[in-house]
Amino acid sequence: MNCLLLSGGVDSATLAFWVAEHHRGESIRAYTYLYGQKHAVEAEAARTVAEALGFEHRVVELPAIHGSALTDPCRALPVGRDLGTTTGVAPSYVPARNLLFLAQLAALEDACGPAILWLGVHRDEHTGYPDCRPEFVEAADQAVRLGTQHELRVQAPFVRWTKADIVRWGVAHGVPYQSTLSCYQGRRPACGVCDSCQARLQAFAAAGAEDPISYAGDARGRPVSGDRYQDQCR
Amino acid sequence: MNCLLLSGGVDSATLAFWVAEHHRGESIRAYTYLYGQKHAVEAEAARTVAEALGFEHRVVELPAIHGSALTDPCRALPVGRDLGTTTGVAPSYVPARNLLFLAQLAALEDACGPAILWLGVHRDEHTGYPDCRPEFVEAADQAVRLGTQHELRVQAPFVRWTKADIVRWGVAHGVPYQSTLSCYQGRRPACGVCDSCQARLQAFAAAGAEDPISYAGDARGRPVSGDRYQDQCR
Repeated sequence: MNCLLLSGGVDSATLAFWVAEHHRGESIRAYTYLYGQKHAVEAEAARTVAEALGFEHRVVELPAIHGSALTDPCRALPVGRDLGTTTGVAPSYVPARNLLFLAQLAALEDACGPAILWLGVHRDEHTGYPDCRPEFVEAADQAVRLGTQHELRVQAPFVRWTKADIVRWGVAHGVPYQSTLSCYQGRRPACGVCDSCQARLQAFAAAGAEDPISYAGDARGRPVSGDRYQDQCR
Repeated sequence: MNCLLLSGGVDSATLAFWVAEHHRGESIRAYTYLYGQKHAVEAEAARTVAEALGFEHRVVELPAIHGSALTDPCRALPVGRDLGTTTGVAPSYVPARNLLFLAQLAALEDACGPAILWLGVHRDEHTGYPDCRPEFVEAADQAVRLGTQHELRVQAPFVRWTKADIVRWGVAHGVPYQSTLSCYQGRRPACGVCDSCQARLQAFAAAGAEDPISYAGDARGRPVSGDRYQDQCR
């Protein structure tokens, strides 16, 4: 069984197509996790991507993870690229998220049989997101392998790719990026200014490709810097 | 912060006292996880043990874990010791449970600051429970350390002790074993015949100590073998 973490964004949607391409004919299942993220609407994008590939898609709700701008109501979503170079982690780092997703997936799949757990992390996230680094992927692979009854492994084929590399591969292989959702505000048209929209715009620009989604106002491709805006405390 | 996985059984109750003894004056918090176990009543025993030590106690509910006799309604609870020597894992092995608990604890604690995550696994569980072996503890420690922003570590001080060693230490240090609950059926008096009751009885016998809890009928100390009984499918 191939199980992939599918958020509905650019990286995991491309991963879905990558796994479909490299594991043709094998069973593939996609999982989307709800963990209190403000942009939980991403689960709909994930479902569209999974449907495009004919994958079974499951949405799993976990206890909310706190301590991130992506989940805490009173913490502002980051505007412009913010990789946490001064603070250690990015504001959008979600504590131990990848480990928790992998562990939950391991618990589900270890009940059934051998599986590869696929994770779409990449090189641009090595700064600011400890759980996206190659050393974490290797450690998680060991923990999953040693802590389960079946042969379960973690693989992250993009871990040394840039996001632009991912987009380049995805454009060449027909990934329907118009169906993906990256915006931390969960907006369509995308806000264009949040950290995630900015990373997406930069990756498409670096890949020499056109991003097929719509952006609000004149934000497309415009780098943003300066103060973060406050999202409403809800 | 010291965070310990407290199920309310002998091992984790002793661990609670061990941590209290060795980390006197430090903050200590106990967590009990609900994961669909039939003996969820163990959370009450955990609360009593935590209260005895003045620890803050949190109960966290996770999506149910399937694929274990401890959770699946139609799978019988194991009677007598069954360490899965022929099947690879014990019937009471719960898929990736320890990894999932540690990952969830890491997500909670990494939002706050450095922490040690304490786990009460021991040597008698090395057969039948892959996630109780020293190599798993080491791998989980690495995954938690590398996948988080703060200094989070996993420690399992009993990992090379037998359950009898644990009981011996606990009796000498006043662990209130009368408050603990081991029975997979969640019964008080304990059934005395399930795998967990049998392991407990054997450990007290080997430690030369008297188990202060009550057992149903004449089951105390009587080894059980043969067919497993069926618990009702509910």
